[in-house]
Amino acid sequence: MNNPFVNPKKKPDTEDGVYDDFERGLANRNSGTLLETLALDITPLGAHYLLTHFDTPIIDSNEHQLHFEGAFENPFHLDMRQIRSLPKVTMPITLECSGNGRTKISPRRYSMPWAYEAVGTSEWTGTPLAPLIKRARPHSEVVEISFTGVDYGYDAGVGHYFGRSLTLNQIRNLEVLLVYDMNGQPLLPQHGAPLRIIVPGWYGMASVKWLKKVEALTEPFLGFQQTQTYRFRQSADDEGQPVTSMRVKSLMVPPGVPDWISRNRCIEPGKITVNGRAWSGAGKKITKVEFASNGNWQAAEILDQVGKFAWTGWRYQWDAKPGKHVLQCRASDESGETQPITPPWDLAGFGNNAVQSVTVFVKDHNC
Amino acid sequence: MNNPFVNPKKKPDTEDGVYDDFERGLANRNSGTLLETLALDITPLGAHYLLTHFDTPIIDSNEHQLHFEGAFENPFHLDMRQIRSLPKVTMPITLECSGNGRTKISPRRYSMPWAYEAVGTSEWTGTPLAPLIKRARPHSEVVEISFTGVDYGYDAGVGHYFGRSLTLNQIRNLEVLLVYDMNGQPLLPQHGAPLRIIVPGWYGMASVKWLKKVEALTEPFLGFQQTQTYRFRQSADDEGQPVTSMRVKSLMVPPGVPDWISRNRCIEPGKITVNGRAWSGAGKKITKVEFASNGNWQAAEILDQVGKFAWTGWRYQWDAKPGKHVLQCRASDESGETQPITPPWDLAGFGNNAVQSVTVFVKDHNC
Repeated sequence: MNNPFVNPKKKPDTEDGVYDDFERGLANRNSGTLLETLALDITPLGAHYLLTHFDTPIIDSNEHQLHFEGAFENPFHLDMRQIRSLPKVTMPITLECSGNGRTKISPRRYSMPWAYEAVGTSEWTGTPLAPLIKRARPHSEVVEISFTGVDYGYDAGVGHYFGRSLTLNQIRNLEVLLVYDMNGQPLLPQHGAPLRIIVPGWYGMASVKWLKKVEALTEPFLGFQQTQTYRFRQSADDEGQPVTSMRVKSLMVPPGVPDWISRNRCIEPGKITVNGRAWSGAGKKITKVEFASNGNWQAAEILDQVGKFAWTGWRYQWDAKPGKHVLQCRASDESGETQPITPPWDLAGFGNNAVQSVTVFVKDHNC
Repeated sequence: MNNPFVNPKKKPDTEDGVYDDFERGLANRNSGTLLETLALDITPLGAHYLLTHFDTPIIDSNEHQLHFEGAFENPFHLDMRQIRSLPKVTMPITLECSGNGRTKISPRRYSMPWAYEAVGTSEWTGTPLAPLIKRARPHSEVVEISFTGVDYGYDAGVGHYFGRSLTLNQIRNLEVLLVYDMNGQPLLPQHGAPLRIIVPGWYGMASVKWLKKVEALTEPFLGFQQTQTYRFRQSADDEGQPVTSMRVKSLMVPPGVPDWISRNRCIEPGKITVNGRAWSGAGKKITKVEFASNGNWQAAEILDQVGKFAWTGWRYQWDAKPGKHVLQCRASDESGETQPITPPWDLAGFGNNAVQSVTVFVKDHNC
């Protein structure tokens, strides 16, 4: 039989604003944050975005083991009781899916059709990974450590366990955590229970869920999710660059009340506070947030950063006058990067950090 | 200005399997159950389906009050501390969205494009509502009790708080609960925190979230969500019948491993156990579940019902032979109702309880 696991539709033959049943199915399976929960420092359980390549495995945490293997002097494995007894760290960390904003890039890659909603901030609890790598004593010729999940499936006809890799320096410098709790509770099955890593500052694909294996490699990792996807590419024959740190970005809580279908917003005239969140990768601080009504950019007030690797609040007092308005927000970080107005081109729709636009109607009568 | 809150696209001018940006946006906002979690008696937090008409309000539970008002002899209000001190009941209850399956009905109503995933079972904790209604002493001419949420928005140009009604008999007979905990934890914001009702056996629209008002009415409730939508209609000029009890239905955990985009499944040849859930409304028990490979129906084994108002497990030993197969399941309840093979027609796509179909490929070589 023909291989039914090579995707039936290929790359950029999608039409702007038109989606088929597979894309609709992905949008139903994968969950976006409700933008109204950006009002909260910590995203509520179940409102954190969720992108699952394959199926969510249902794992018995009493049976689960994490294996440190490959080119280690001292390979070992740990069960969940042992992992929970290690030194404990809790940190709010903002994660964004690198495909967030894909639907705004034309032509659109045939994949999960995110608009703005694939971001969230949780309190993650776990133990630093670097000391465990040190305990396992990598051979001197080790170049990378790979992370493999329990989840198995097909992408472009290639069957594989979800896997990613990092260098020893990245594991140390990024403060990678081996995580078992989320918002003070054991990981939910769909967020990687009983064990995952969190790679602060990087897009979400690096934070491997349902982690079963940490392997020391003497050659670069060639796993599908490292080499075939999650690369910035200008064209199909571009070898590309790996997707890593999150780009500077911001979102607002859409003000007013919505229409059920279009999500157009209705607002009473007068002064209102618009608020939202801004973040960047690699621990870079947010230095500026601007707010615009119909393209007229003004400085917004920056509030506290929720944590070293978490988003920063912002707010702006807006005088809502009757009529239709397009509201936008734009953040800059300490490296001098600012969100672009139009989406940066990427073949697979990765890393779109263009400004959000929200259409509102301020009423002179009932909306 | 024109009213931007009348939906820009109207009813059945949708094309099968083709979705626009508004429908894609609704699919991103609203979350389906991951069908693999049907393996669990209780749907994990965050994996329960979620359909939100407007925005999720962020409510301070310390400030929230529930008002019993209208045609009561003894109107009163309660805060959350008072409600939590009332007699407590915990019950597993299965809820399904009445729009579940909408995408399988042609022509499709322009609304949230569910396929199979809008169902879930949680352990809901609260207090029975009937004794509180009794305490408020409805006037003798009361015909209905309405339930109003904090959430406000527009549908078809009509601004309204989400509201629904039930008769006094329905509140008593359906064992309606005033609920504040879900799976042993305070309601999540997106599931109605701090207070909602749960109407066991009915489709989800009756279980009003973010409940602020219980009003005794001497005339039938005319709220938008009671009279304009959630009605079974054959055509646009059909007055229709209200959507109430869930129809008998079943789902399977799709066996094997998926392709990331198409969700086609790959299975090793040999005997496997396919399992799933079946449920019906109005407390009706499941009496039969059948499983089919390529239309060859066989009796499946019925397992325990998770609770009086919750789904029933089932399983079937299937001998997977190489090739492509369409797997289906079909439940019957004690009233003699059986799931149809093809979707029952409804103008708005409500109540589609047709059998699920899952395409699988059993490999003779790698999928």
